[in-house]
Amino acid sequence: MVGLDTQNGSAVQRRLMETAPRRSWRTHLIGRPLPTADAPHQTVGKAIGLAIFASDALSSTAYATQEILVVLAIAGTMAFRYAFPLSIAIVVLLIMVTLSYEQTVHAYSNGGGAYIVARDNLGELAARTAGAALLTDYVLTVAVSVSSGVAQIVSAFPMLFRFRVHISAVLVLFVMMMNLRGVKESGKIFALPTYFFVVAMYSTVIIAFIRYLAGNLGVVTNPPPLDVAATAQIAPFLLLHAFSNGTAALTGVEAISNGIPAFKEPKSRNAGITLVWMSAILGSLFLGISFLAVHIGAIPSERETVISQIARTAFGGVGFFYLASIAATTVILVMATNTSFADFPRLSALMAIDGFLPRQLAYRGSRLVYSRGIVALALIACLLIIAFDASVTGLIPLYAIGVFLSFTLSQAGMARRWWKSGHLQPGVSSKEAGSTLRHDHRWFVKMMINSTGSLLTAVVVVVFGITKFAEGAWVVLILIPLLALLLRGIHKHYLSLARSLNLDEFGEPPPIPRHRVILLINQVHRGTLAALRYAQNLSFDVTAVHVSMNRAESENLRGAWPLWGKGTRLLILESPHQAFLEPVLRYIDEISNQRQPNEIITVVVPQLIPEKWISSLLHMPTAMLLRLMFLTKKNIVITDIPYQINGAAG
Amino acid sequence: MVGLDTQNGSAVQRRLMETAPRRSWRTHLIGRPLPTADAPHQTVGKAIGLAIFASDALSSTAYATQEILVVLAIAGTMAFRYAFPLSIAIVVLLIMVTLSYEQTVHAYSNGGGAYIVARDNLGELAARTAGAALLTDYVLTVAVSVSSGVAQIVSAFPMLFRFRVHISAVLVLFVMMMNLRGVKESGKIFALPTYFFVVAMYSTVIIAFIRYLAGNLGVVTNPPPLDVAATAQIAPFLLLHAFSNGTAALTGVEAISNGIPAFKEPKSRNAGITLVWMSAILGSLFLGISFLAVHIGAIPSERETVISQIARTAFGGVGFFYLASIAATTVILVMATNTSFADFPRLSALMAIDGFLPRQLAYRGSRLVYSRGIVALALIACLLIIAFDASVTGLIPLYAIGVFLSFTLSQAGMARRWWKSGHLQPGVSSKEAGSTLRHDHRWFVKMMINSTGSLLTAVVVVVFGITKFAEGAWVVLILIPLLALLLRGIHKHYLSLARSLNLDEFGEPPPIPRHRVILLINQVHRGTLAALRYAQNLSFDVTAVHVSMNRAESENLRGAWPLWGKGTRLLILESPHQAFLEPVLRYIDEISNQRQPNEIITVVVPQLIPEKWISSLLHMPTAMLLRLMFLTKKNIVITDIPYQINGAAG
Repeated sequence: MVGLDTQNGSAVQRRLMETAPRRSWRTHLIGRPLPTADAPHQTVGKAIGLAIFASDALSSTAYATQEILVVLAIAGTMAFRYAFPLSIAIVVLLIMVTLSYEQTVHAYSNGGGAYIVARDNLGELAARTAGAALLTDYVLTVAVSVSSGVAQIVSAFPMLFRFRVHISAVLVLFVMMMNLRGVKESGKIFALPTYFFVVAMYSTVIIAFIRYLAGNLGVVTNPPPLDVAATAQIAPFLLLHAFSNGTAALTGVEAISNGIPAFKEPKSRNAGITLVWMSAILGSLFLGISFLAVHIGAIPSERETVISQIARTAFGGVGFFYLASIAATTVILVMATNTSFADFPRLSALMAIDGFLPRQLAYRGSRLVYSRGIVALALIACLLIIAFDASVTGLIPLYAIGVFLSFTLSQAGMARRWWKSGHLQPGVSSKEAGSTLRHDHRWFVKMMINSTGSLLTAVVVVVFGITKFAEGAWVVLILIPLLALLLRGIHKHYLSLARSLNLDEFGEPPPIPRHRVILLINQVHRGTLAALRYAQNLSFDVTAVHVSMNRAESENLRGAWPLWGKGTRLLILESPHQAFLEPVLRYIDEISNQRQPNEIITVVVPQLIPEKWISSLLHMPTAMLLRLMFLTKKNIVITDIPYQINGAAG
Repeated sequence: MVGLDTQNGSAVQRRLMETAPRRSWRTHLIGRPLPTADAPHQTVGKAIGLAIFASDALSSTAYATQEILVVLAIAGTMAFRYAFPLSIAIVVLLIMVTLSYEQTVHAYSNGGGAYIVARDNLGELAARTAGAALLTDYVLTVAVSVSSGVAQIVSAFPMLFRFRVHISAVLVLFVMMMNLRGVKESGKIFALPTYFFVVAMYSTVIIAFIRYLAGNLGVVTNPPPLDVAATAQIAPFLLLHAFSNGTAALTGVEAISNGIPAFKEPKSRNAGITLVWMSAILGSLFLGISFLAVHIGAIPSERETVISQIARTAFGGVGFFYLASIAATTVILVMATNTSFADFPRLSALMAIDGFLPRQLAYRGSRLVYSRGIVALALIACLLIIAFDASVTGLIPLYAIGVFLSFTLSQAGMARRWWKSGHLQPGVSSKEAGSTLRHDHRWFVKMMINSTGSLLTAVVVVVFGITKFAEGAWVVLILIPLLALLLRGIHKHYLSLARSLNLDEFGEPPPIPRHRVILLINQVHRGTLAALRYAQNLSFDVTAVHVSMNRAESENLRGAWPLWGKGTRLLILESPHQAFLEPVLRYIDEISNQRQPNEIITVVVPQLIPEKWISSLLHMPTAMLLRLMFLTKKNIVITDIPYQINGAAG
């Protein structure tokens, strides 16, 4: 009589969906559970898609130029003239990465983040490395973006400078709360700030450029003082270092490749076009900002951002337009963290399903968001912000290594894929994990594009490692391999677990020859009787055990038991020294050493549940303590029978 | 077939006593469990009894005189001449309290602390107040004694002054660890330091006195500077304040009344004689120290104690005898805290048994000591020491109020008892809670003695409250009533609990009409099969429930179930958004809303127990989460079936 009751199941399921969601203590903090908060996106067109997925990438323009200048400043302000050529080199890199990702977008129409592409084409080591690199950089994205956002605020309102760490932490926690409540990633709410930023930045850059051509732009008035003294010569190492810092502009370019399923059909085509548009905007804004920064003589400083200096100069002072463009920059920077808040837990869940991270991360919380991942991300980002005093320049040496490592692995994976595709017979398709592979007659060109992209980004990773090593990159260079090792350890645990649980060469478990039930009792009361009733339902073999702490109480019990005990054996353990748990432990140890193989002992513990939570401090968590004690013993089950106390007598 | 299996029980009991005690993580920290550590004392004679119970009282002489001088110093060093007359007044008070307690010792041969006497004779309010007062003062005794002990060390080694808080905290934690290991309170180990102190102090006082009579004592050389400037006139308020400070000398006098059972027969007589001896030593030492302090011109100071100044002057410098007497003083002060460490948890346990404190405090830990009470005492005392910078003068305003309040209540209780005794017919005895009451023909004299004692100490409490109010006594005057209220709240909880659990007007609980068992499963593996076997043992009505997180896994399960499921229904709950707990919660809510009254639902959760503790972070504590969710729902039982994983496949 095998009952695969799944039809009945879906009926129950349907009814369940109609019942009201459960309330809990979290309800007060993060709102009522939202059953549809994270329901599959409404698909979006290119314009909205750009707004949703571009905030992270575009917001990088707010700090990339400044971080180039910071390095050049070590060789004096004369070195600033290298900023624009370096920016051009970075844009060339951007173009290569964009071409590469455009191919990924077409190959992985269900979403092709670096982890998936590496896993499907390069195997476990690459997947773990990509995963570790991405997780690291999502955290850094939050820290850098928020710190840069706060730097914009501080530029406009210098008196807030000494609160920058506080403001940053509050903003991170704010975005965290919004995500715990279940922010809809899709939706037009994202369109407004992104386009506001694009318009504000282009206006600033174009006005400044017109004034530059007209010859009346001038230089920035009252620039902030340089934070560093010029102590070095211009040298290739310095230029490479500045280049490394500037590549932070490329972070976020990969966001669209994760979000392909959100686009309207034809998904890949729409996502690809959006990607190209995004890169075009990103590249042009970045070049414009770099050009202007040098020409107005902007000074990189923790006190006033380069963006603020450009806006101030373009609009001829601190007026409405200046404040608008600062506001736009701040908002997009804070919004950029939202991409991390969506992708970090989603990647964690993906890796948890693959057995590289704890299973718990694969499950969503009551708001249907991955609450554990969201909270973890926010807390680590806050710690980083505190440790680095919300300084973008302090955080930058750690940043972007992970992103470029994942670029490298992702594109290497794509190159491998084209290679395999080229060696398939036309018309034959191979079902690789994740996506279907067909012969592509342009495989060689595509392979070359991805290979070049991979090679270039690999070189950038090496340049990062060398030029930023002493400033902090060493932390990341140690952290990512350690994380990858940890992921391996977790994976091995799950694999060995599966082996030791598998049913090959394993018959039915032997039957239970005897089921002894031990009922712990203090006194005879209603809770005891409920537990006794349950115990007798479990087995005929019930022994009531009482630890005598108090002679009078024990005598009462002994007197009452014939009346209430329903024929159950009563065993009174003496405890002359008021120890409670120890006599019970010894007794259970004793009988468990004497039992037959596969005999089961269930300890039934009546547990009083007071109405008010605080009152539970007045009761021993006996079942919990016993459960901890017997965790590693075979065939001992601790069951607490909760007995709810309803206030006064009744 | 009622089976009162207690004979078999004591056989098991005997065997249990022979088995080795369990090991646990605490073994490493506080040693192996000591089954007999706190076994009933070997009874002791008067000499050892004095050594055991007098350390707290005698050690008070180390700071009482100094704290009188501290107050008088506000009116200038000329005011010091009042120190000796005030000391005489305090000794008169000591004599009254001793007479009073001598009567208690005879009336309560099983131990008559203030809490017991107040409870038995004055009722609940007095008992709660006495309990709250005593608990407060035990904490203060630890803080004051250790601080004073460290002040002696610092007097001899001034370079340690800035480490006084650290040294104090380490000493408190040391005494705590010793007590957690199970120090034997009885034993000759206590005799040595107490008599060492008595001999050292008497030698110092007598030598100084001889030199004084011979006229070559002189004054203290290089006295420390006065901490305070003389800003007040000598006034009655100042004298009362100084008197209040000095009464700290009386703290600890009550210790013998708690310890009567430890004495050899005739217990009461021996304890009474020991009490008188202790008071005689205490009074004479205190008077001697006060007399000498004034005559050598000792200056009260945080830098050098008055004891140190007297010893230095008596022995003519910092030599062997000086160091010996400082060492003796330090040791007895630290040992004095041991009385609190024994009495605080013992009183807590007593109050817990009476339902005024959480039940857990009534149980001993694995070393057969009341570990919770010991740790609580040490931590609160450490916080006090840190808050008051290990300053005796800072702590004194809070001190002794509790002790004198408990003196007052205890003696009022005794007076009440004599009154009742006087109104009993001769030859009739009345079994009052705690002790047997007989007619006493000297009841009136005894009542007058206790009444006078009670009245005097009550006056002292009022004087304390007024003179030390602003300096810190207000804290205690708020704290003790609050504590007494808290004790009332706890008591009410237990009373209402007993009412709502009592079996009057309560028949048998109704039978269980149906026992539904829900078995949660992820996959079919050995752990699942063990849980299924258990579930089928519970009831014929088992439904296996699976939350589908992953289509492939669910299909595997659906395929494997007919083979392994032994005919159990399988219900697959869809979870399109990767929520795990919520579908289960909704399903259980659903079926629990439909069930008949008294139907029971047991949720069986297979719980994998990894070999290494750290690996359990990789598994969902599903049962624990469900248990929290259903705590307040009737007749839902969550049972986890632990399945121990033994490393690799096997």
